[in-house]
Amino acid sequence: MKSTAITKPMTREDVTDLIYSAKVQKGLKWSDIAVKLKLSKEWVTACCLGQMTCTKQQATILGKIFDLPPEAVKILQVVPYKGSLPTQVPTDPLIYRWYEIVSVYGTTIKELIHEEFGDGIMSAIDFSMDITREPDPKGDRVNVVLSGKFLPYKTY
Amino acid sequence: MKSTAITKPMTREDVTDLIYSAKVQKGLKWSDIAVKLKLSKEWVTACCLGQMTCTKQQATILGKIFDLPPEAVKILQVVPYKGSLPTQVPTDPLIYRWYEIVSVYGTTIKELIHEEFGDGIMSAIDFSMDITREPDPKGDRVNVVLSGKFLPYKTY
Amino acid sequence: MKSTAITKPMTREDVTDLIYSAKVQKGLKWSDIAVKLKLSKEWVTACCLGQMTCTKQQATILGKIFDLPPEAVKILQVVPYKGSLPTQVPTDPLIYRWYEIVSVYGTTIKELIHEEFGDGIMSAIDFSMDITREPDPKGDRVNVVLSGKFLPYKTY
Amino acid sequence: MKSTAITKPMTREDVTDLIYSAKVQKGLKWSDIAVKLKLSKEWVTACCLGQMTCTKQQATILGKIFDLPPEAVKILQVVPYKGSLPTQVPTDPLIYRWYEIVSVYGTTIKELIHEEFGDGIMSAIDFSMDITREPDPKGDRVNVVLSGKFLPYKTY
Amino acid sequence: MKSTAITKPMTREDVTDLIYSAKVQKGLKWSDIAVKLKLSKEWVTACCLGQMTCTKQQATILGKIFDLPPEAVKILQVVPYKGSLPTQVPTDPLIYRWYEIVSVYGTTIKELIHEEFGDGIMSAIDFSMDITREPDPKGDRVNVVLSGKFLPYKTY
Amino acid sequence: MKSTAITKPMTREDVTDLIYSAKVQKGLKWSDIAVKLKLSKEWVTACCLGQMTCTKQQATILGKIFDLPPEAVKILQVVPYKGSLPTQVPTDPLIYRWYEIVSVYGTTIKELIHEEFGDGIMSAIDFSMDITREPDPKGDRVNVVLSGKFLPYKTY
Amino acid sequence: MKSTAITKPMTREDVTDLIYSAKVQKGLKWSDIAVKLKLSKEWVTACCLGQMTCTKQQATILGKIFDLPPEAVKILQVVPYKGSLPTQVPTDPLIYRWYEIVSVYGTTIKELIHEEFGDGIMSAIDFSMDITREPDPKGDRVNVVLSGKFLPYKTY
Amino acid sequence: MKSTAITKPMTREDVTDLIYSAKVQKGLKWSDIAVKLKLSKEWVTACCLGQMTCTKQQATILGKIFDLPPEAVKILQVVPYKGSLPTQVPTDPLIYRWYEIVSVYGTTIKELIHEEFGDGIMSAIDFSMDITREPDPKGDRVNVVLSGKFLPYKTY
Amino acid sequence: MKSTAITKPMTREDVTDLIYSAKVQKGLKWSDIAVKLKLSKEWVTACCLGQMTCTKQQATILGKIFDLPPEAVKILQVVPYKGSLPTQVPTDPLIYRWYEIVSVYGTTIKELIHEEFGDGIMSAIDFSMDITREPDPKGDRVNVVLSGKFLPYKTY
Amino acid sequence: MKSTAITKPMTREDVTDLIYSAKVQKGLKWSDIAVKLKLSKEWVTACCLGQMTCTKQQATILGKIFDLPPEAVKILQVVPYKGSLPTQVPTDPLIYRWYEIVSVYGTTIKELIHEEFGDGIMSAIDFSMDITREPDPKGDRVNVVLSGKFLPYKTY
Repeated sequence: MKSTAITKPMTREDVTDLIYSAKVQKGLKWSDIAVKLKLSKEWVTACCLGQMTCTKQQATILGKIFDLPPEAVKILQVVPYKGSLPTQVPTDPLIYRWYEIVSVYGTTIKELIHEEFGDGIMSAIDFSMDITREPDPKGDRVNVVLSGKFLPYKTY
Repeated sequence: MKSTAITKPMTREDVTDLIYSAKVQKGLKWSDIAVKLKLSKEWVTACCLGQMTCTKQQATILGKIFDLPPEAVKILQVVPYKGSLPTQVPTDPLIYRWYEIVSVYGTTIKELIHEEFGDGIMSAIDFSMDITREPDPKGDRVNVVLSGKFLPYKTY
Repeated sequence: MKSTAITKPMTREDVTDLIYSAKVQKGLKWSDIAVKLKLSKEWVTACCLGQMTCTKQQATILGKIFDLPPEAVKILQVVPYKGSLPTQVPTDPLIYRWYEIVSVYGTTIKELIHEEFGDGIMSAIDFSMDITREPDPKGDRVNVVLSGKFLPYKTY
Repeated sequence: MKSTAITKPMTREDVTDLIYSAKVQKGLKWSDIAVKLKLSKEWVTACCLGQMTCTKQQATILGKIFDLPPEAVKILQVVPYKGSLPTQVPTDPLIYRWYEIVSVYGTTIKELIHEEFGDGIMSAIDFSMDITREPDPKGDRVNVVLSGKFLPYKTY
Repeated sequence: MKSTAITKPMTREDVTDLIYSAKVQKGLKWSDIAVKLKLSKEWVTACCLGQMTCTKQQATILGKIFDLPPEAVKILQVVPYKGSLPTQVPTDPLIYRWYEIVSVYGTTIKELIHEEFGDGIMSAIDFSMDITREPDPKGDRVNVVLSGKFLPYKTY
Repeated sequence: MKSTAITKPMTREDVTDLIYSAKVQKGLKWSDIAVKLKLSKEWVTACCLGQMTCTKQQATILGKIFDLPPEAVKILQVVPYKGSLPTQVPTDPLIYRWYEIVSVYGTTIKELIHEEFGDGIMSAIDFSMDITREPDPKGDRVNVVLSGKFLPYKTY
Repeated sequence: MKSTAITKPMTREDVTDLIYSAKVQKGLKWSDIAVKLKLSKEWVTACCLGQMTCTKQQATILGKIFDLPPEAVKILQVVPYKGSLPTQVPTDPLIYRWYEIVSVYGTTIKELIHEEFGDGIMSAIDFSMDITREPDPKGDRVNVVLSGKFLPYKTY
Repeated sequence: MKSTAITKPMTREDVTDLIYSAKVQKGLKWSDIAVKLKLSKEWVTACCLGQMTCTKQQATILGKIFDLPPEAVKILQVVPYKGSLPTQVPTDPLIYRWYEIVSVYGTTIKELIHEEFGDGIMSAIDFSMDITREPDPKGDRVNVVLSGKFLPYKTY
Repeated sequence: MKSTAITKPMTREDVTDLIYSAKVQKGLKWSDIAVKLKLSKEWVTACCLGQMTCTKQQATILGKIFDLPPEAVKILQVVPYKGSLPTQVPTDPLIYRWYEIVSVYGTTIKELIHEEFGDGIMSAIDFSMDITREPDPKGDRVNVVLSGKFLPYKTY
Repeated sequence: MKSTAITKPMTREDVTDLIYSAKVQKGLKWSDIAVKLKLSKEWVTACCLGQMTCTKQQATILGKIFDLPPEAVKILQVVPYKGSLPTQVPTDPLIYRWYEIVSVYGTTIKELIHEEFGDGIMSAIDFSMDITREPDPKGDRVNVVLSGKFLPYKTY
């Protein structure tokens, strides 16, 4: 029996690459794409980068925007394996600054949330994020608002 | 020549342990301590947990609040070796959720900041944080506002 | 002597990719596939994802369901190299929660099993799992029952 | 100025060690301790092993059971830094079997929860666990029921 | 409130250190100790090095042999947190050779056990080991017999 | 100057994949292949899985058994870069049990070999392994005999 | 439904490979390329190696120099995911020497910057580097001038 | 035979701790200490932080400045085990920025040194460093000059 | 705009693979190749395996010996990114033994070089190696002579 | 039952610290100590640093040289857990250069030993090392001769 060459099936990572490449080559902006989906730019970007799951309608719109093949439109409706970074400690300077915030302020965040709410966590699932430009004469600032539901640990 | 037992000198970590223990045993709150220093609770907590540097005056106030020995008051005025977490991937569920946000949304944050500002980073040094409770009938939320100066990469 | 291009032979990972892609493109459900094999959805999903070994009959049924080539049907009958996750600490939030349960409750589980059974382990081989939805007015719950034979350490 | 020897303040890990040692030397059982707290043996063990936070009343009861000094009773009421294992991949065979279940069945659990509930996670916070002995003529089994609230990802 | 110095309670690692030190200072042999316990030298050594659990009687005998304090005798009867090596890849040349055998022959062992028994594992719990000297004119050999129950994966 | 597509030359890993695939598709057994080479099934399997080096004659026989191209037959005669596992801690349950044996019994093995032979190691090179089925009414056992020359450390 | 082969879209890494290969095959020098862009050789090399972002004009010039396809010219204008090294500890001896400087002198650099400037950092974003040859009769030296803006931590 | 408590002998790390503590408590500056040794502040700081070796005369001066015991003065004359950072990727923000420079510019530095000098390295041993403040109306800058002998690889 | 398939340009790793494959298929020996280049077998092998840089003349000779395409001959003249091993701790038994020598004797080598030369290092750049067979009636030995220039640390 | 403070028994690491400290404080040289033991300085240093095992006579001589307590003399006669370095990749520059030699030349060493001897390893147990100063007008060199028995892999 002879081995025959197999066609490697498309994965969500392939879809992310197709979307990213189409965005660059067409010169699109994430915020404009978000408007077409009537959702926040934060959710839409995370979705396009392989971290969120589309409804059929959302996937169809993205398929049109990025000229995706039909398989890709189906794959966008499947829950992806999440995690967008290639290393445990991110090497990209912008993303590293966030890792540093967790490293330097992590115990501070923990103390202050516990002082206000008691034992529990701030949800990263029932969660939203809003990134805006804050004009400042000494140099504009990035303003990020994170909102996560507090989930208490319960005794049982 | 005989070896004599040496007294291990006090480190910033010892000071953090002394502060943390005194806070627990006296039943103090970070927000009340912050009021005494006339600074935000976020900066004060980070400082008490070994991540920031005091002026002489701030160190003296903290020394009184926590009954610290004179060496400790001097050590609080020295720039510490920063990083508050014992492992690269934090094991504490509350802090892990922040690591997860960086993991899942890291590339999203990167894309949206670059779309708005171009190449550069959001500073983690010229930076402030504000943690508040957002009442919500479906369960109160943790609201965190992060504000960091945008620093552009420059050609040269 | 000239090098000639070789055809990379099919691996179990290729078969998993083929199955997963066919499932997505055909819109199948794991629980329906399990019914066709007359086995639990847990075992069948683990098998389709490359963690279990089929009998010839099971492989043939899967081959029909997913339009697999004959090589793939043979590969499904070979014991695979197991382990379904790409990193030591999983990055996917759903799977991470399970890692967190092991991290936070690991010593608890150990203590309680030893208290009840003495020294030994709960088998992960003579093992079954049942995942169900538990309706709850405050939000439905995921109910997972794990059953593993207790294997005692013996003196010799 | 001479360095003076400092007394290292008590930490939660010290309290865990004191509790564990007292339990062993007194020959107590976790399930009996749980009865005194009127809580499940799972929560109580996790708490005694440094993973949960006591109310004042619970801490006082534990202090009496284990002859803890007053500082320890206060420390039990503080939210701990969680994570009970010394290494990323646990070396203890009983706990490793759980890590293996996550490794081998992780993607299966993910698929089946998503098939039933859509995108989201099973909470490890709004969570309970029940460990029981299941008699079996071929060798008794460990039965573990995990119940976690399903938390859906939301668009925004 | 003043912090008072706490006495760090004895752990299983302390007991292992006490046993090991007593063995060296008294010039005892593991095989002689095993004879006193009427068990194999392999199990007894593993137990003395903190990997197995004693009955009360066994612990009492070990306590006499090594002049252990009463706390230590109690600790020997508690199931330990297992894993005897300080690093993932062992640095000691003798132990590394075993890691190398797993690295070089691991897939071979897997293939041959599966060929003979089908899918499953060789138990490391229902397991025994026998280490003997095999005289050989070209240099004596270490002969190790490992016997582990085969545990099959089952469908369900 | 234009880049031209290069043909990636065949590696030992490609040969291992070809052998493994042919074995699966033809339904061969390692023990039968070993008979044809008049060598133990342990050595032959390790060799086929890329860990040992063939003579010309052995390579030719393997080439015929598995229909290998002539380049592959030459590659089998080259000493390979050894190590058969993809991760430091193996994820496959069967192979992990062996890693666990090294982890739990590693210091025991070390002590007992040193007690019998003095300082030195058990060779993993001048080494052989024999895997057999040991019938047992309570469930058959895997019996593995490892034989390695003792190599003493010498002073100089 | 049949899977169709997808064309993997071009990434920044592909562009880096194309540039590097063209540079080698054409025998160009980084310093000559920098002259054409009227920028420092340090910035231009970093940009060509995938670490900086071009303006449209710069990308067009690079496209001509290296015969890049139009997609590549667009990709050069997109902010890249930064980090040029394949491992946490670099294996290349030249680059490792820099890692060693950070390892051996890291705390020294920290102390001296803090002594001069107080708490804060030397920016790696508002940053420039100049590498020159310093003739020396005992062997020429590499002279590197690093200039980074000091960014102070602020209380808030 | 009874174990007797042993006095742990002084190590270079103890000496570093003594020096650092004395510096903080006495309010000394590295640059003033360097003047007393008639050496650069960079070398002196690295030496005091455990990275360089003193002559007898230098050690004696440091002993007087920091009130060190006689053992410490001897230890300063012994070549230390170097490496000043506790983790592979430094967590301190100031030191991390240097790691980031190696990560982002590492291949650039490599290319430009090779373009100028050919294959070889910039020595981190025959090396000096000079850190100065560069006044700048937009914010003062840290200026660092690194000078290392070029060492060519040789054929042989 | 359509993505077009790009031809992946040749890298030094491709050249190493081509050389290695040609050597195996042609049955060449490293020592014979070294004779043709009039250099040591150690340097030539390291160069062919991607660790050293050729002159034009050396590259041309290698190109003829191994039938390399013209791009490859150019690539051989470019300084490579060095480091020949796929993992931090090598898995290959022969190479691991060298890692073990560094692990077991590393501090010994350090002490003896410092005792003879003072603080500094043995260069791995101004370095040569000579590997020979040392006949021995008890079994031939591998004799390796390493010669590296001593580079002293200097005060400044 | 009250916990009583236990005396931590002496370990081989304590003995190494005692020896190293005594050597520094007494100003001894490894080569002089080796003369007293009538062995090579390489073996004696490795032994004193915790990597080799003494006979009773050797231990007694070392005990006198370093004023060791009787327990320590016994501990020197026990086979130690070997491996002298605190991290997988050594941070000390002198020892790192050896790691770099393994990294850069590892595959070269492998190829040349296999070319001369066939498949097998150079023993790190039946092994000796000789470190000498090689005078050189361009700067003295460190000359290291390593001699290890070749151990062939055997078929069986």
